[in-house]
Amino acid sequence: MEKKPRQVNKATAIQRTSVPFIDELLGWSFPILDHGFIRVIDYLGDDHAIDEAARMSYGAGTKRTTEAQGLINYLMNHKHTSPFEMCEVKFHIKLPIFVMRQLVRQRMASLNEYSARYSKLSDEFYMPELEDLMHQSKDNKQGRATQLPQVTGEFVQGTMEENARRSYDLYEHLLSDDIDLARELARINLPVSYYTELYWKIDLHNLFKFLHQRTDSHAQKEIRDYADFMEWLVSKWVPMAWKAYRNYIRDAISFSGAESLMVRVALENHASLNPATKPTYADQLSNREWKEFVAKIKRIA
Amino acid sequence: MEKKPRQVNKATAIQRTSVPFIDELLGWSFPILDHGFIRVIDYLGDDHAIDEAARMSYGAGTKRTTEAQGLINYLMNHKHTSPFEMCEVKFHIKLPIFVMRQLVRQRMASLNEYSARYSKLSDEFYMPELEDLMHQSKDNKQGRATQLPQVTGEFVQGTMEENARRSYDLYEHLLSDDIDLARELARINLPVSYYTELYWKIDLHNLFKFLHQRTDSHAQKEIRDYADFMEWLVSKWVPMAWKAYRNYIRDAISFSGAESLMVRVALENHASLNPATKPTYADQLSNREWKEFVAKIKRIA
Amino acid sequence: MEKKPRQVNKATAIQRTSVPFIDELLGWSFPILDHGFIRVIDYLGDDHAIDEAARMSYGAGTKRTTEAQGLINYLMNHKHTSPFEMCEVKFHIKLPIFVMRQLVRQRMASLNEYSARYSKLSDEFYMPELEDLMHQSKDNKQGRATQLPQVTGEFVQGTMEENARRSYDLYEHLLSDDIDLARELARINLPVSYYTELYWKIDLHNLFKFLHQRTDSHAQKEIRDYADFMEWLVSKWVPMAWKAYRNYIRDAISFSGAESLMVRVALENHASLNPATKPTYADQLSNREWKEFVAKIKRIA
Amino acid sequence: MEKKPRQVNKATAIQRTSVPFIDELLGWSFPILDHGFIRVIDYLGDDHAIDEAARMSYGAGTKRTTEAQGLINYLMNHKHTSPFEMCEVKFHIKLPIFVMRQLVRQRMASLNEYSARYSKLSDEFYMPELEDLMHQSKDNKQGRATQLPQVTGEFVQGTMEENARRSYDLYEHLLSDDIDLARELARINLPVSYYTELYWKIDLHNLFKFLHQRTDSHAQKEIRDYADFMEWLVSKWVPMAWKAYRNYIRDAISFSGAESLMVRVALENHASLNPATKPTYADQLSNREWKEFVAKIKRIA
Repeated sequence: MEKKPRQVNKATAIQRTSVPFIDELLGWSFPILDHGFIRVIDYLGDDHAIDEAARMSYGAGTKRTTEAQGLINYLMNHKHTSPFEMCEVKFHIKLPIFVMRQLVRQRMASLNEYSARYSKLSDEFYMPELEDLMHQSKDNKQGRATQLPQVTGEFVQGTMEENARRSYDLYEHLLSDDIDLARELARINLPVSYYTELYWKIDLHNLFKFLHQRTDSHAQKEIRDYADFMEWLVSKWVPMAWKAYRNYIRDAISFSGAESLMVRVALENHASLNPATKPTYADQLSNREWKEFVAKIKRIA
Repeated sequence: MEKKPRQVNKATAIQRTSVPFIDELLGWSFPILDHGFIRVIDYLGDDHAIDEAARMSYGAGTKRTTEAQGLINYLMNHKHTSPFEMCEVKFHIKLPIFVMRQLVRQRMASLNEYSARYSKLSDEFYMPELEDLMHQSKDNKQGRATQLPQVTGEFVQGTMEENARRSYDLYEHLLSDDIDLARELARINLPVSYYTELYWKIDLHNLFKFLHQRTDSHAQKEIRDYADFMEWLVSKWVPMAWKAYRNYIRDAISFSGAESLMVRVALENHASLNPATKPTYADQLSNREWKEFVAKIKRIA
Repeated sequence: MEKKPRQVNKATAIQRTSVPFIDELLGWSFPILDHGFIRVIDYLGDDHAIDEAARMSYGAGTKRTTEAQGLINYLMNHKHTSPFEMCEVKFHIKLPIFVMRQLVRQRMASLNEYSARYSKLSDEFYMPELEDLMHQSKDNKQGRATQLPQVTGEFVQGTMEENARRSYDLYEHLLSDDIDLARELARINLPVSYYTELYWKIDLHNLFKFLHQRTDSHAQKEIRDYADFMEWLVSKWVPMAWKAYRNYIRDAISFSGAESLMVRVALENHASLNPATKPTYADQLSNREWKEFVAKIKRIA
Repeated sequence: MEKKPRQVNKATAIQRTSVPFIDELLGWSFPILDHGFIRVIDYLGDDHAIDEAARMSYGAGTKRTTEAQGLINYLMNHKHTSPFEMCEVKFHIKLPIFVMRQLVRQRMASLNEYSARYSKLSDEFYMPELEDLMHQSKDNKQGRATQLPQVTGEFVQGTMEENARRSYDLYEHLLSDDIDLARELARINLPVSYYTELYWKIDLHNLFKFLHQRTDSHAQKEIRDYADFMEWLVSKWVPMAWKAYRNYIRDAISFSGAESLMVRVALENHASLNPATKPTYADQLSNREWKEFVAKIKRIA
């Protein structure tokens, strides 16, 4: 280990990458939901670092004159994902336990969460706003439909608050000198609406995967709020990579093999697409699939 | 894709590995805690598969006469972990959410958990037995000390049950036709004592890491119950690997660099080890470290 | 660990999943390239196991009457990838070192490779067939163009063979009693065309990622041969998952945000797509992008 | 995505962590072997970042007065590895292909390697120094013994150089306009002694795992040179974490369950340890195991 380095070449010295906009807001606490927040703690790399890592792979095979945005577009479009792993960002996040239970599924991330075995949780729970209290969707088994009537919403808020407060009172009572129950047991009474905190570090490729999944309209509204804000941060941190993500991933539309045929036939036949009348050339698709296909076309902004 | 395989060599045909003991109890539901269970759904590989993968690496460099237990011991002792990744096991587990929150931290595992966004959770929550309701430990910030007095314990059980029931009643009411709140919102009122279920698949190397961490006396009692039972299953599934794990990992004692010196000096000086009087040759260690060191020696069964 | 399981519920007993077609060919050696092969050593799970893991997540939210193919299509289409991780397959593969250097990039796989530090490599190197000896592509920096003239090809084969043989002769000479050089040093003289072997275990989700990348026309021909054969095996092992993969991943066409607009406008305007004349509504795309877009449409089989 | 952040709390602003010593030598090229090098391109975090992430987990359960070195020692000693994942370092490495083949096995790292499909490799191969040309070890199947006689060594260097040069000449000829063979095929003739380059990013926990494995005396000398230098860099980058690593991992000695008993009995019996005469209390160990045990004790510096 103590080997002295020989003939160091200092001519290759470089400066550390930095992004002034992010440096400026490092540590700032941006509120999410009622008691949550996101803070950027640190980061590694920028758009240039992606470009540079890709040029390492391509070597002399890439002309220096290719500009960075073009190369980054190419990488994103062709799923050359490893250069995007060369950037990292570390967040401090405060979020309800039920949102944390979704966040933790990101395998390729590092995290340190507040431990309710070591320390007492504070008295903060998530209470949805009236406009977020919605009926169960009938056709989307995991989604919400229309807003509850105001009076029902207020009743729900009242009972949820009462339930959360009573649970926390019990928690505090169990921890009090009177009972002195172990923290790791007392906490099992708290609902998943209670807030927890963590440090969360993830590379840009895996962050894009997370954003694609959790900014989607099918993601639960609460984690979407966190993901939406992270996407804004990403757009400021690595604007070129974000533009490529937006065009080639977020706003891209994928047609299955069967659907692709429809696109071609429709184009070649100058065909109108009517969800109600499935044309003969679409025999391969069921009526439901035809409707989905037309909806996919129409959805294009 | 449709390339026809040429001159297949059928002489190399093999039988699928199987472990009759595990085949016999496949799917059996073994109860853990009050409402939880573990079931083995499927598995891949056995002791022989570890041996075989290791011999792939060593090639002609390993004599066939070396018996499997010796080779497996060598692998475990020298942290050649990749052959242990060649075995997999898939469990169906029912466990409280707060235990799930610990289990999910195993990064190198695959899982599918019951979703309370899609479906209603059933009315089952974890209630610790009287003997498990313990005071907060003073010296171990994440641990338990002595049992609560019986009357206090019964009071705690009573209030915990009442709290869980009330939370579930609210949950059901919010889901009822009267209110019809979206499932993904109604569930945020449920405490982390409620049960969830999952399929969990993990390779043997990573399962050993999990077992080492979660059968430890510092792990929370509830996850330890799951880990202890899994260790029993492992001892039946891959008995050679388990023996090696027990000797080289579970029962091994690691002395730090500073402590190692103490061991040697003590041996060479025929020294007695007295926690109260730190000898001069142990100047490197603080008094606390000296006590820990002697305790480590004494702890050896 | 020695806790006795209580009241085991044997009524939940299940049979191990098995796929007779794969059981039949377990261990059979299928030749790839001139000296390589693939053998299936073992596997875990089948189509039903994917279906079952997904139903674990959806719980009562999924009607049992939904048939497996429909559910598996839904999972693949919506990138619900975790149920596909519930299947594993273990191969024994013999392949040239330069192909191994591509295979090893699959992070989510387990492997044990033959070690040239422990054992002597055998005298087998990859020699491309005449039809595979091709000129460097001009427009695809990582690809091949047309075949070399036969006489040039034969010359290339001759010099490559001579070079490989001389390298191996040197290798053997360095290992001989005359010199007795350490194996780990003698092997550094061997070209990357030499064959190595490994056990390779991977879950189905990550295998699909591998197949998508390495059966692509831009993958090097030699690894494509391995990937193509694996895809055939997958189509026999988990035919439903493979059908879904084929339709939603392999044969799917993704249009970027900008391209998607073109598809819609073209459909609505009953427009013809001519690569040579970019219409005014495609101003967003460069001429190169317009050509690629039309090519993408035309490529649809 | 375009949600405007509300009431940002700027009072939580922080400075980016930086380590002046590393900032100073960023990009400097440190030579390793004959043509290789290591450059630090960027990094994230420092000792303080580890401390901070751990305090996130322990919350109020950790007194602020505990100094950082003590907490970091505790984390390392008790295998609380996640805080060490909060630091990252990115290297630019030039190394022979056979060393790369070992480096790439680190799963939890990100990399971009020079592609010989895109670009021509340069004419640089690794030539061991005379002092590194050693005989095959008889008792260590993967190791080296004594140095070759000088005249043999010089002969070996001569033939290795000739072989490498002839292979490269062939490579260049195949790439020349005369033949114009695809780069991806021409390169298969090059020996694994040829140099490649990559960007390699890894977190500190996984870097410690790599260092422990590859600075070991059983690692091949050539990768050890890279690992040794990286360890020196780590000792400058995160000196507290490195001290903890040195004491609790690198210099630690682990006794198996069976060996631990010997340590205790030997201490209690004021016993001398003689490798030649196994005492009666060591009946559990074979003669070989007894010798290894005594060697382990003696090895303590």
